[in-house]
Amino acid sequence: MPPVVETIADLRARVAGWRKDESARIGLVPTMGALHEGHLSLVREMKARTDRVVVSIFVNPAQFAPHEDFDRYPRNMEDDLAKLATTRADLVFAPGVAEMYPHGFATGIEVAGPSAGLETDFRPHFFGGVATVVAKLLIAALPDIAIFGEKDYQQLLVIRRLTVDLGLPIEIIGGAIVREPDGLAMSSRNAYLKPDERRIAGKLNLVLKGVASRARSGHAIPATEAAGKTALLEAGFNSVDYVAIRDAETLEKIETLFRPARILAAAKVGATRLIDNFAV
Amino acid sequence: MPPVVETIADLRARVAGWRKDESARIGLVPTMGALHEGHLSLVREMKARTDRVVVSIFVNPAQFAPHEDFDRYPRNMEDDLAKLATTRADLVFAPGVAEMYPHGFATGIEVAGPSAGLETDFRPHFFGGVATVVAKLLIAALPDIAIFGEKDYQQLLVIRRLTVDLGLPIEIIGGAIVREPDGLAMSSRNAYLKPDERRIAGKLNLVLKGVASRARSGHAIPATEAAGKTALLEAGFNSVDYVAIRDAETLEKIETLFRPARILAAAKVGATRLIDNFAV
Repeated sequence: MPPVVETIADLRARVAGWRKDESARIGLVPTMGALHEGHLSLVREMKARTDRVVVSIFVNPAQFAPHEDFDRYPRNMEDDLAKLATTRADLVFAPGVAEMYPHGFATGIEVAGPSAGLETDFRPHFFGGVATVVAKLLIAALPDIAIFGEKDYQQLLVIRRLTVDLGLPIEIIGGAIVREPDGLAMSSRNAYLKPDERRIAGKLNLVLKGVASRARSGHAIPATEAAGKTALLEAGFNSVDYVAIRDAETLEKIETLFRPARILAAAKVGATRLIDNFAV
Repeated sequence: MPPVVETIADLRARVAGWRKDESARIGLVPTMGALHEGHLSLVREMKARTDRVVVSIFVNPAQFAPHEDFDRYPRNMEDDLAKLATTRADLVFAPGVAEMYPHGFATGIEVAGPSAGLETDFRPHFFGGVATVVAKLLIAALPDIAIFGEKDYQQLLVIRRLTVDLGLPIEIIGGAIVREPDGLAMSSRNAYLKPDERRIAGKLNLVLKGVASRARSGHAIPATEAAGKTALLEAGFNSVDYVAIRDAETLEKIETLFRPARILAAAKVGATRLIDNFAV
């Protein structure tokens, strides 16, 4: 199993050692634990691109609203470490809340631009919490590359913007979504799904594929988005936060498919909120 | 004269070279130029503590409100470089606005805690702009120590909080206020003062000394603050934003002088806003 450090100072000492003794290139894979094959694919991707890979595991309270699932978010460090032992991860950084948010902590980072709309309309706290903790993780590890799963596509764009804006000398890359046999995007929150909900959840990706193909064949974008929403409700989702076709780089609204686009959706099945997206 | 670099990449290359070739300790002196003896004392202080000293010169638009003096803020690079030639500054980092705020820039950093009240009541944009640019300067140079003048005492506390909160491995120190013969704290904005205003400006520090001594002799704090405000108006200041005696570490309001305190004030003479502070 990879060794675990719990303080920023210990993380820095390891990374500094690798840089000095091995001239190593460093990769960082930030996670909230509850690791699944999607996370492990990010670790393998980083290991192919860098010499030493750090996986951080931190369930970040700042990105959950009070009514959200911070308390019941799945946590199983032993299981996570066993899974990481099957990869070639070199180090796990697993700080406690007091290490990341010291006494008197008062700093918040907000990224406008790609954070506008979509997730922010439904989780207004989310990207502020993400930007603050990711900035801290990037500053703590100062890797050459950090990787984030494309399932959280808007988050990936927010983090890329943040990294450029702060002038952090770190390349931010996206890792392809890993899917279950029926196409459901892997997510730690899939563990919440009851068997009948799990069957419905599997239709999210199929509906989005259909929407993408309608858009590609020239149907008007607003009507196509609305049809996607209807299709999700008919498939058994309880509510649909959004089905949106956006500019793939800026997430701005688009009228036509002249530039690369992305279809993004968020919907609830039972009490569980799922998100997914595809390139159009 | 010290060499000048204009890009973050060039700054990083110089610093990396010093660290690699000389195992140098690096000091950073962030300024907005229009250098005076106060700034030069910070450079000398850094030079005594570190091996290589970078002085940044950047008039940061983000910390000026639209009605403030960004356009007329004094700028004279040639003069600044000549003054720095009298110190042993090793490098000047003088980025343009596009280098610090690249196209699409969307990130803002806010520090609550020590930024509450005082300057924020009168310049609500100020500390957000300061925190964002200072974070960028610290991340760009990654010095061992950075120094900020104590004239901007609240700013010093905000930057110290920011640095701890982001986990930047940098020591933040304050440099003592340098004063003119009549006690006026040196400031680039003193250049705005007409001769009769300059005479009034010199009374700010004397009034604050009187207020501090009243407080020390046991007068109630709110009455002492109010007396200071009256004294400034009587001395010829056009308006007084605040005269406040606060906890020296947190800037919280205090009832008694049991812990180290600081008296802080901001007042206008003519169109020029001056600030000053003393340990109580």
